[in-house]
Amino acid sequence: MSEGTSVRAILPGTFDPPTLGHVNLIERSARMFSHLTVVVADNIQKTCLFDAEERIEMLKELTGPYENVDVALHRGLIVDYARENDIHVMIRGVRALVDFGYEFELAMTNKQLNRDLEVIFLPTDPKFFVLRSSAIKEMASFGADISTMVPLSVSERLMKRIHRRDGEKR
Amino acid sequence: MSEGTSVRAILPGTFDPPTLGHVNLIERSARMFSHLTVVVADNIQKTCLFDAEERIEMLKELTGPYENVDVALHRGLIVDYARENDIHVMIRGVRALVDFGYEFELAMTNKQLNRDLEVIFLPTDPKFFVLRSSAIKEMASFGADISTMVPLSVSERLMKRIHRRDGEKR
Amino acid sequence: MSEGTSVRAILPGTFDPPTLGHVNLIERSARMFSHLTVVVADNIQKTCLFDAEERIEMLKELTGPYENVDVALHRGLIVDYARENDIHVMIRGVRALVDFGYEFELAMTNKQLNRDLEVIFLPTDPKFFVLRSSAIKEMASFGADISTMVPLSVSERLMKRIHRRDGEKR
Amino acid sequence: MSEGTSVRAILPGTFDPPTLGHVNLIERSARMFSHLTVVVADNIQKTCLFDAEERIEMLKELTGPYENVDVALHRGLIVDYARENDIHVMIRGVRALVDFGYEFELAMTNKQLNRDLEVIFLPTDPKFFVLRSSAIKEMASFGADISTMVPLSVSERLMKRIHRRDGEKR
Amino acid sequence: MSEGTSVRAILPGTFDPPTLGHVNLIERSARMFSHLTVVVADNIQKTCLFDAEERIEMLKELTGPYENVDVALHRGLIVDYARENDIHVMIRGVRALVDFGYEFELAMTNKQLNRDLEVIFLPTDPKFFVLRSSAIKEMASFGADISTMVPLSVSERLMKRIHRRDGEKR
Amino acid sequence: MSEGTSVRAILPGTFDPPTLGHVNLIERSARMFSHLTVVVADNIQKTCLFDAEERIEMLKELTGPYENVDVALHRGLIVDYARENDIHVMIRGVRALVDFGYEFELAMTNKQLNRDLEVIFLPTDPKFFVLRSSAIKEMASFGADISTMVPLSVSERLMKRIHRRDGEKR
Repeated sequence: MSEGTSVRAILPGTFDPPTLGHVNLIERSARMFSHLTVVVADNIQKTCLFDAEERIEMLKELTGPYENVDVALHRGLIVDYARENDIHVMIRGVRALVDFGYEFELAMTNKQLNRDLEVIFLPTDPKFFVLRSSAIKEMASFGADISTMVPLSVSERLMKRIHRRDGEKR
Repeated sequence: MSEGTSVRAILPGTFDPPTLGHVNLIERSARMFSHLTVVVADNIQKTCLFDAEERIEMLKELTGPYENVDVALHRGLIVDYARENDIHVMIRGVRALVDFGYEFELAMTNKQLNRDLEVIFLPTDPKFFVLRSSAIKEMASFGADISTMVPLSVSERLMKRIHRRDGEKR
Repeated sequence: MSEGTSVRAILPGTFDPPTLGHVNLIERSARMFSHLTVVVADNIQKTCLFDAEERIEMLKELTGPYENVDVALHRGLIVDYARENDIHVMIRGVRALVDFGYEFELAMTNKQLNRDLEVIFLPTDPKFFVLRSSAIKEMASFGADISTMVPLSVSERLMKRIHRRDGEKR
Repeated sequence: MSEGTSVRAILPGTFDPPTLGHVNLIERSARMFSHLTVVVADNIQKTCLFDAEERIEMLKELTGPYENVDVALHRGLIVDYARENDIHVMIRGVRALVDFGYEFELAMTNKQLNRDLEVIFLPTDPKFFVLRSSAIKEMASFGADISTMVPLSVSERLMKRIHRRDGEKR
Repeated sequence: MSEGTSVRAILPGTFDPPTLGHVNLIERSARMFSHLTVVVADNIQKTCLFDAEERIEMLKELTGPYENVDVALHRGLIVDYARENDIHVMIRGVRALVDFGYEFELAMTNKQLNRDLEVIFLPTDPKFFVLRSSAIKEMASFGADISTMVPLSVSERLMKRIHRRDGEKR
Repeated sequence: MSEGTSVRAILPGTFDPPTLGHVNLIERSARMFSHLTVVVADNIQKTCLFDAEERIEMLKELTGPYENVDVALHRGLIVDYARENDIHVMIRGVRALVDFGYEFELAMTNKQLNRDLEVIFLPTDPKFFVLRSSAIKEMASFGADISTMVPLSVSERLMKRIHRRDGEKR
């Protein structure tokens, strides 16, 4: 079994929108596993700025350069996606201790629902420490320069979307 | 690159002695990567109960059943071992928040010394939460029953060693 | 005062719904104190899946086997319940560090409002680590099997309630 | 079982020396349980400023006013003391998050060695937040005024001891 | 440059309403810097009990006694307020570990948006540990005595406001 | 009091040896206060690689460019140094949550010993996150390249010292 094993992994998230931190995680994960699926969680109870189709479109653009990465949409529990697709590794990015408590609990919960799924934590590169989607959206809505936080294509969509939303509010 | 990639990983540690928690980590890691090397750190500044050769012997016994696992000894920085052997993934077990602060800092330090090494964190199975080598040695020296904490072969060696050490002290 | 003191304690919570983790806490607390009152907080600002009466009904069923446990409803500050009933011990379950920061702050706040109330923390059994009511409700709504997380009677009510709610949404 | 149960508890520690924080914990614990034993751990691997007999002497003086409190010496695992004396509750003081990670792990370890022992955490009164024995000894050795940190009788012994030790060093 | 430098600082917050903990922070900050501006964040996405004008009015009353303190209103990113006013120090109060994770992340984010702004953390006096505006409002709405938590003038306004709001709800 | 106040601050530490992280803290602190004294703690109970005189020499070289910074040696409690020199601000660098628990406790202890001393926390620049003196010494002793972690002059001294020490050991 030593040479040439095939281990597939998933990187689940909301990606509303994808950030440079996400791109960094994807790139690093794709080097570690035979195949990586970026799974966009479509949770109807969560209000997103971008709908699931747009988030998938952006991720497909961003993951284009990586041969062994694809993008999928999933409604429901992520552990079920893994089971249905016979995938046994799930990757979660963690930014210092801020995230870890929550992530550890989530990992334990997922393990209880699917004993065959390993959750592994990949520490966020300090360069991308602050790139949380929710914070970026808030900063963008206040007019902050977010060009160093999200890919160029995302930045353009985000600015357009925020202006449209603010226009609707008025 | 999609099917049959070969990704090798290391699991470094002191293993003084190996515990059931270590065995669990090894088993899970061996499923995720093509090849796993358990690297015994031989740090002359750290006083161990078992010398490096014994720790390697115990680990070789314990990892015997796993085809894609071997055991190595290393003196020096673990990041150098990875570089010299062209390995790009290092696995660390983390037990809830107790370990994470230290582990995160260590990962950042290692990253600074070797940009090509990914450190990934694997959460400890709650069943093995308490199996820290140092705590087990302390409990054993007080006569506690440690048979559910270390493999049988380790348990026997540990009891012998502790009795010998205590004999020398008197 | 040495033999046969009577110390009564309260275990407050929302219990929406009660979980196996709650039952475990109740059982352990009932062994440590002369009398235990499970206090259901009826907070009108919090939207619950089960109304206060149902939660009390479920808890009464679950605590039936324990002679020295009863269930009460309280609107308002829990420290006032303690004062009015001349109770000086309040029990809080804590699951690793995830909960502790919040719980410690809450304890300090309660102490400031009622100097005569001791708040004690009881660590959650790792077996019940993931059984947070909110997570269980979310998992149940995604169709996950929650039969190992809540008592059987609760599981049935929960599935019924979620189906009804989802029916109303459509 | 509702009125007049007898529940005994232990409060283990090194108490080198006892502080006002310890006295506060003892007082509060004594109100919550029928009987409290302050257990002085005599760990030969730990170098103490005061030997076990002195620490017991100081604690006996300090706990004199409490009818339902006594002091005991124990060599070995504290879980064994509890088992041998048929005691099922162990109290640990916790000072915010600083202590909690370690205490939680210790509780899990103890639970694994003795399923019948409940470990409960009592939050330290913020007034006594800084009164760690080791810090007090260090401050005293630098000539700091520690009279608000330890009981008067302890303060006198501590100053004498530190002067004697420093004299021996020279 | 050693004598008589002029360093101005800001203390931003929502102050809904100002608490005795805020007053303590203001007093201590005003002693450390040449000039302090208390900046009231007017975030339209956050629902406040008191509108921005009232919060400013309360803060002006409370900071009246301090010669080198003034109060300002700001809509938008606080880093932009600092830049526009050529201020390079921002003060944040931190209450033990509960706040620190969030505050550290916020500081990193702000630093990324404004490299010339230093964020410094001032530990909350334990006496004021529990005085979070949101908790105080919740306690007040349950009829708790909050007179030791907020300045007298704030307490009166708060009680009036809560009664009015509850009246409207009915 | 508004323009041109003189506020002096201290930055205490062991500085064994000073790192680029320390230099960064000094530079940022010197901009915030009228005068900064870097205080080298000479604690006889702590074994240092460099003696106090050498550490002071290195710091004097490194702080040469800053007009309002000087270096001092202190034996004893740092709060006493502050009191004797009529200084009311002490600066501590904090690297994420790893340090904060300990630092917060230390701040509370110092406050108890000297009510007139404010302890402020300055978050470490993520670039210098890993530059802890103890880790750097360990890495250097394993032959790691530390030239990006300490100033050039310190790097040379450190390599010489480690070779001498290792020579003595043999």
